[in-house]
Amino acid sequence: MKVERDLHMSRGNGETSYASNSRLQEKSILKTRPVLHEAVAAAHAASLSSAAGAMVVADLGCSSGPNTLLVVNEVLGAVADRREDLMMGGQQPPVVQHVQFFLNDLPGNDFNLVFQSLELFKKLAAAKDKGESLPPYYIAGLPGSFYTRLFPDRCVHLFHSSYCLMWRSKVPDELARGTVLNEGNMYIWEATPPSVVKLYRKQFQEDFSLFLKLRHKELASNGQMVLTFLSRKNKDVTHGEVSYMWGLLAQALQSLVKQGRVEKEKLDSFNLPFYAPSVDEVRDVIRQSEAFDINHIQLFESNWDPHDDLDDGDLVLDSAQSGVNVAQSIRAVIEPLIAHHFGDHILDDLFEVYARNVAKHLQKVKTKYPVIVVSLKARRAPKCHANDRCHSFTHGQFV
Amino acid sequence: MKVERDLHMSRGNGETSYASNSRLQEKSILKTRPVLHEAVAAAHAASLSSAAGAMVVADLGCSSGPNTLLVVNEVLGAVADRREDLMMGGQQPPVVQHVQFFLNDLPGNDFNLVFQSLELFKKLAAAKDKGESLPPYYIAGLPGSFYTRLFPDRCVHLFHSSYCLMWRSKVPDELARGTVLNEGNMYIWEATPPSVVKLYRKQFQEDFSLFLKLRHKELASNGQMVLTFLSRKNKDVTHGEVSYMWGLLAQALQSLVKQGRVEKEKLDSFNLPFYAPSVDEVRDVIRQSEAFDINHIQLFESNWDPHDDLDDGDLVLDSAQSGVNVAQSIRAVIEPLIAHHFGDHILDDLFEVYARNVAKHLQKVKTKYPVIVVSLKARRAPKCHANDRCHSFTHGQFV
Repeated sequence: MKVERDLHMSRGNGETSYASNSRLQEKSILKTRPVLHEAVAAAHAASLSSAAGAMVVADLGCSSGPNTLLVVNEVLGAVADRREDLMMGGQQPPVVQHVQFFLNDLPGNDFNLVFQSLELFKKLAAAKDKGESLPPYYIAGLPGSFYTRLFPDRCVHLFHSSYCLMWRSKVPDELARGTVLNEGNMYIWEATPPSVVKLYRKQFQEDFSLFLKLRHKELASNGQMVLTFLSRKNKDVTHGEVSYMWGLLAQALQSLVKQGRVEKEKLDSFNLPFYAPSVDEVRDVIRQSEAFDINHIQLFESNWDPHDDLDDGDLVLDSAQSGVNVAQSIRAVIEPLIAHHFGDHILDDLFEVYARNVAKHLQKVKTKYPVIVVSLKARRAPKCHANDRCHSFTHGQFV
Repeated sequence: MKVERDLHMSRGNGETSYASNSRLQEKSILKTRPVLHEAVAAAHAASLSSAAGAMVVADLGCSSGPNTLLVVNEVLGAVADRREDLMMGGQQPPVVQHVQFFLNDLPGNDFNLVFQSLELFKKLAAAKDKGESLPPYYIAGLPGSFYTRLFPDRCVHLFHSSYCLMWRSKVPDELARGTVLNEGNMYIWEATPPSVVKLYRKQFQEDFSLFLKLRHKELASNGQMVLTFLSRKNKDVTHGEVSYMWGLLAQALQSLVKQGRVEKEKLDSFNLPFYAPSVDEVRDVIRQSEAFDINHIQLFESNWDPHDDLDDGDLVLDSAQSGVNVAQSIRAVIEPLIAHHFGDHILDDLFEVYARNVAKHLQKVKTKYPVIVVSLKARRAPKCHANDRCHSFTHGQFV
């Protein structure tokens, strides 16, 4: 598997596409609004005081679908609000700041679909915007992995990323080599040996640390970052909610193995480039990076079924329907990876079995995704003068 | 016809795609290398002295195919050369400047194809680059018409555009309204009435003037612009080489009208959003804009047949083959417009007839495209202090 080639949401806007099945991610964006708006205000202030001509905002892992432009919409609204706040507070309104968006995802993402929806988005935004409060804005697409450099030094004021940072840059090398270390599974589940858990955790630590280092170089002074991704409540990684998500899909594949439709070796060699960390694990890597201060860190929960809007209670009203809904939302995300490894002839049957497995599970317990939202502010390395020696950051984090 | 939706090169990389049929444009990019390299040197100097963190380069009308990244390659090479020149001259080597590219085209362009070829491009560029001379670079896609704003104020150091600025923002309103003003033609040809010529010329003047005004706002101090596009040698626009190009295609459509395969009304209502200006017409609009100084302006000629590399002589060796070659190169550019207006069932036959018409014409006279290359430097409006009045630019060009 090659993550940069095979990891992308299902293309187009048909029934099984990501564009039509991303309600979960939409709910999460709306839930993290207050945190995002605060970060936008701080990033906007940073952009006004810098020499840059515009506020630069990047959405990392933008995908293609309504959520892609929902983020743009939220940020534009927050900039407009910020401007109004300043004026209401009797302050001189700041010069009209242009906003430049970069929508980033892996090169396999359907950027054409995003670009073709821009005209309609702009019309809708202009129609909603009764006054003249929306700032002028520009939207570019930026293909590439966020585990590589994406921008020149110190030019971005705000990074946003939603539902992406649980994806790893690769399957841990030892797992990818072909020796069967995690038989019958595709991620960490009940029977997974501790050595495999360790490999996954190490991959997360390396990836997230690299991510922070890269973004720090790209952020302007006082630059902000809001990251939302799947997390883990359980200290024990083999029993988390996300483990169930992949565990039940592995079970569905096992059923197909039993029917002789999938080779056992195929399943055993399939490992996801994925890790859902706990809040403590996330906090540890941020502290060790020494590159960011945490403005805000929080865990919230989101129903597994994206169409279940009941926030209270532990009851699943229609578990069969919820099973189908969950299967569809996971399929939109994972279909290209599955199709590349197993072939696309198994897709329909696999996700039918998966829907049934999920339904059975939901009858026992209403499962919710733990989602972490973390808001960070870039620390700036002290400027070194030619004859000075900088002692503050000597661990290579700012190299 | 809606230019923003229908005007794009043929997608993909199949036999009739633009990617496989853009040798003409490739030859032009190579021919204008010295002018481009000079502009890159000036833009690079401007970016070093500005507060910006990187040199920002935009290719307007990038299309999708090998030429898209050929431009990126040329600019990167020129930046590396510039760095070496400075060091050879005994100067302190400048700080390593990052280069940020924006590849712009209309939203219908196949950006996915471009983005998916980036990885290979980066590998090839790194392999060719023996030393460490290539600067770090980043490539984004920017959908939108260059007859609208594309960037925040003063953030671009170099604009490049190749084989695009002969396309208009729209068909002149009076022609688009439906009254038949230019019977049997799709562009200006021998029987075109002077009133229609006037409409096309006016559309060019308005578009090009708008283009200069928009880009001027977006260019940083001492920003540069290199524009290459189809032009006209003949003072008389009804007899230019480009008129033949479209005239013979109109003739091919007339043949299909005679066969009853195309309705006459369809042909009469088809008008191209196109105008090939003379050097004088181009120079006049630049002067009137008061926004740019001309570094360089020049007309060169390029054989109509993209595979004919004989620069001298007036002989076409194999006119039948050249007819086919020309038809293919034009088809790659115009196919989406034709298909949208006439339906795609006529495409194969139409371009077969066209190839024969072109072959017949080439037996009489070896036709060459006149191509204009103009290199411009942005003038900066004097800064106004709060109590001053600026008298220099009062015509609204810098508003």
